[in-house]
Amino acid sequence: METIDRLRSLDREITLVQHIAAALGWDQETYMPPAAVEERGDQLAFLESLAHEKATAPEIGELLATLGSTTERPDGPEGLPEFDRAYLRVMRRAYDQKTKLPTELVAELAKATSLSQAAWAKARAANDFKAFEPHLKTMVGLSRRMAACLDPDKPAYDVLLDRYEEGASRASVAAVFTPLRTELVRIMDAVKAKPQVDDACLRRPCPEADQVRLSEYFMKVLSYDLDRGRLDKTAHPFTTTLGESDVRITTRYHEDFFPSSLFSTLHEGGHALYELGIAPGAAYARTSLAAASSMAVHESQSRMWENMVGRSMGFWRHHLPQASRMLAPVLDGVSLDSFYRAINKVEPSLIRVEADEVSYGLHIILRFELEAALMSGDLAVGDLPGAWNEGMKRFLGVTPPDDASGCMQDIHWAVGLFGYFPSYALGNLIAAQLWEAMKVQGLDPDAAVERGELSAILAWLRANVHAPGAAYSPDGLVRRVTGAPLDASHFVRYLDAKYAGVYGL
Amino acid sequence: METIDRLRSLDREITLVQHIAAALGWDQETYMPPAAVEERGDQLAFLESLAHEKATAPEIGELLATLGSTTERPDGPEGLPEFDRAYLRVMRRAYDQKTKLPTELVAELAKATSLSQAAWAKARAANDFKAFEPHLKTMVGLSRRMAACLDPDKPAYDVLLDRYEEGASRASVAAVFTPLRTELVRIMDAVKAKPQVDDACLRRPCPEADQVRLSEYFMKVLSYDLDRGRLDKTAHPFTTTLGESDVRITTRYHEDFFPSSLFSTLHEGGHALYELGIAPGAAYARTSLAAASSMAVHESQSRMWENMVGRSMGFWRHHLPQASRMLAPVLDGVSLDSFYRAINKVEPSLIRVEADEVSYGLHIILRFELEAALMSGDLAVGDLPGAWNEGMKRFLGVTPPDDASGCMQDIHWAVGLFGYFPSYALGNLIAAQLWEAMKVQGLDPDAAVERGELSAILAWLRANVHAPGAAYSPDGLVRRVTGAPLDASHFVRYLDAKYAGVYGL
Repeated sequence: METIDRLRSLDREITLVQHIAAALGWDQETYMPPAAVEERGDQLAFLESLAHEKATAPEIGELLATLGSTTERPDGPEGLPEFDRAYLRVMRRAYDQKTKLPTELVAELAKATSLSQAAWAKARAANDFKAFEPHLKTMVGLSRRMAACLDPDKPAYDVLLDRYEEGASRASVAAVFTPLRTELVRIMDAVKAKPQVDDACLRRPCPEADQVRLSEYFMKVLSYDLDRGRLDKTAHPFTTTLGESDVRITTRYHEDFFPSSLFSTLHEGGHALYELGIAPGAAYARTSLAAASSMAVHESQSRMWENMVGRSMGFWRHHLPQASRMLAPVLDGVSLDSFYRAINKVEPSLIRVEADEVSYGLHIILRFELEAALMSGDLAVGDLPGAWNEGMKRFLGVTPPDDASGCMQDIHWAVGLFGYFPSYALGNLIAAQLWEAMKVQGLDPDAAVERGELSAILAWLRANVHAPGAAYSPDGLVRRVTGAPLDASHFVRYLDAKYAGVYGL
Repeated sequence: METIDRLRSLDREITLVQHIAAALGWDQETYMPPAAVEERGDQLAFLESLAHEKATAPEIGELLATLGSTTERPDGPEGLPEFDRAYLRVMRRAYDQKTKLPTELVAELAKATSLSQAAWAKARAANDFKAFEPHLKTMVGLSRRMAACLDPDKPAYDVLLDRYEEGASRASVAAVFTPLRTELVRIMDAVKAKPQVDDACLRRPCPEADQVRLSEYFMKVLSYDLDRGRLDKTAHPFTTTLGESDVRITTRYHEDFFPSSLFSTLHEGGHALYELGIAPGAAYARTSLAAASSMAVHESQSRMWENMVGRSMGFWRHHLPQASRMLAPVLDGVSLDSFYRAINKVEPSLIRVEADEVSYGLHIILRFELEAALMSGDLAVGDLPGAWNEGMKRFLGVTPPDDASGCMQDIHWAVGLFGYFPSYALGNLIAAQLWEAMKVQGLDPDAAVERGELSAILAWLRANVHAPGAAYSPDGLVRRVTGAPLDASHFVRYLDAKYAGVYGL
């Protein structure tokens, strides 16, 4: 066990450096004086390079080789306790991904990404896809080369997907997304046939100070412990982990649309609860095992609290009176039913980040199909705008008036994040499947929400999802907790039930 | 020049790590969730050890040796530009101080300091000097050993003084303090013979929000640029440097004594202006030359803005109307004269950190004499309380009722900071001497304050004091800027003039 102890000790130092970088990143977004930005960039680059150096130290490779070659002995991986085996899996995966990329490629990627991001920002502002096109071509090419370095035997897109969702492939994602797409289009069409919901009550002016108090109220409701976290204001909401007892969230306040801060607090609070609940045991504290299983699992937690809890009738039956008092007079005269319908309004729109629970998945599936085709070469970069607009028309019935609100709206591809989008939608599916698993296991989460007793749900999530950290792959975790592989039916049932109520489908 | 380039490059990395640590330290005091404290301690310890490792790298020693052995060549130190020579002086000093202490002694000091600090806090709360005495004995002994390692040929206290004020010795400090003591006692006695000033107007309840706005107003008055700094709230006010363009200050708010936040903002603002004004040229940006000359020079800047500017009649003639409006109704009916006298009230008291401009120096001189005697062995640790109380009686005419408000009031000795106290009082003397130098050089700082034109004073300080950074030793800087070595007469003249007005001496 000395070898694995040494490995954990080296690993803990990597985690520590990452936490220090997170503290600097948080400060940069919250309180840093503006003129410090260049120097802060140097500080973060130093920490990143320090973490990389530590993560690719030959000693880690040697320790992993030693531990991997002891399969024949009783203390070899096969004979090790489950979490030790899981830890070796996580460490090998991280070490491989970090050491397989040649330094020249990493440098080329860094430079191209920086240029591409700047070009994207400029091209988006000018609505000029042609100016962005050569950079996107470069990023596609470099991502393909990166995938070939990581695993030359697999299709590039499979390799890229696996970086964010361990074990995922184009086929495994398509197996879930293809039926989902059909169902989402069906629900969207049904909604479109009904009279639209009136959400004007959400757009009444609401002072920032009242929204701050409302966010504080809901952090308490979520049992998000402010001894181990905090809420600040930033341009874009996020969650960041500065330590095992220091997970912070941020939000933004729109005085003419208070749900923005309210739901982002629930969303980021869900991410924070996950991070704070990770507890793979003292031996693995502050190691790479004390991390989320995947980005989709993370998103399942934020979306469960934001949507399945935070946009449910039961939740607002319990909390609307208090929220109305806190925001008075904004919600005066707004009935529970009107409020519930307003916060669940469905409307096909052009922009992913503003999408409702039904259209969101369609935005993602379009990106999944397009990026898979870009990677396989079935779609040329130059044909992206046309394919995008055609897909938007087919899935959502809307046509972007320009590429700025079309295929250039997201930063992801500009900075080489191919394979990242699916996680967002997979998170919704995982959340719905976990919710049903709670029911099967005798916990009635809907009734708990209705009674305002969220602690039972949190306890279940902590035990089943949070505590193991990265011990299980996302697929492994879903199978283990729900007894079945991920499928879209749970989420579709959830949507059907909800929108039957909201729109009388 | 390649050698010195390499040295600067290694040095910049040390500075960068120190700035990262400063960011984490700032966060810990301002916004960090309470449960994160232990982990933050680990992060800071990691950074400290990383900085130490970099600062004691053998390569630095080799580069210094190479640069030092080139005296015979035209590009040797004697032939180098002034700032290059100064840089080598600063780097040699730092490298020597960091490499001369054996690792065992550093470890022993760290452990003893931690125990001693805890014992001090407990003993002070219980007013039990006997419980603290063995720890203080240990700290005295370890400090003597440390001094012997740094320079076995000099008396221990000289070595310790030099750590904070380059070139200072017991004799050089006494040469300034001995006449100062006589004069301070004279002024104090004269004040005591006069009717006391009424400062009740400063103790009227004043909401924190108004004090925040007042602090913001005075940061603008000082030209403390919030693009490169900020103000936050902490238990104890401080200034910290997170980067050459990121120098932050903090304050605290007492609703029943608003001058606390007001003058701490001016004081810390003065420290921040110094740090932000350091500009030894592009080649030395972010190196050890881009640092303060000494702690006393730093204190001269904070005290100049707090006292010579911030407690002057001219300053308040200009700003009292605006301050009264901002704090209304707190200062309603308070005349300029009453306010000026109230903020300059002199009263012998037990506690250094609450002392006025006259008694402050006496508190410091007592500590200087006692710590010098402790280090030379002329005073036994067990005799400290008696010597303290006798000194307080002799200098200030007050006798502490207990050791908690006597010799145990400050943390410094408990954590081994012997030789540190004199800097506080030297700062006052330097400030007064600089102020007179401005006059000699044709700038009328009092008239500038009266007109509300502080920028002329700041520009002079930037050019003469701030910009060179650590290029000159404190003594060298004072001689260079004022044309004479430091002496107490300027400060005494300043006090005489001020208190003639306040108390009609």
